[in-house]
Amino acid sequence: MSTYTYNVTGMSCGHCENAVKEEVSNLPGVSNIEVSADKGLLTFEHDGAAGELTDQQVIDAVDEAGYEATRA
Amino acid sequence: MSTYTYNVTGMSCGHCENAVKEEVSNLPGVSNIEVSADKGLLTFEHDGAAGELTDQQVIDAVDEAGYEATRA
Repeated sequence: MSTYTYNVTGMSCGHCENAVKEEVSNLPGVSNIEVSADKGLLTFEHDGAAGELTDQQVIDAVDEAGYEATRA
Repeated sequence: MSTYTYNVTGMSCGHCENAVKEEVSNLPGVSNIEVSADKGLLTFEHDGAAGELTDQQVIDAVDEAGYEATRA
């Protein structure tokens, strides 16, 4: 299990947090997703047994939700 | 057709607008719903043929979405 942390810009409310959480939850091996609009942060655990997870996959998932992520 | 306008506090983004729009769209006889988080406004048309629409129904619908409405 590895912990991933990303800065996410543009989130303003709980709806935004849920939109990010929903998209990131579709990535394989991801669990314990935490999103804070106030802090502009996304953190989650990734189980390596589910395969490699690249920054681009996370950035794309957050982009799908309508926001911009960068690895923290 | 009558136009109704309400001030709505607490909306911060397009997700908030959609949440309000969705709840208000469930009210009978309502159409042309416009919601602006920036302006804090909700406007819509109401067809009297669908029956009476009270402020309380609108306030309750907006409350369901998580926000507070007052008749403008």
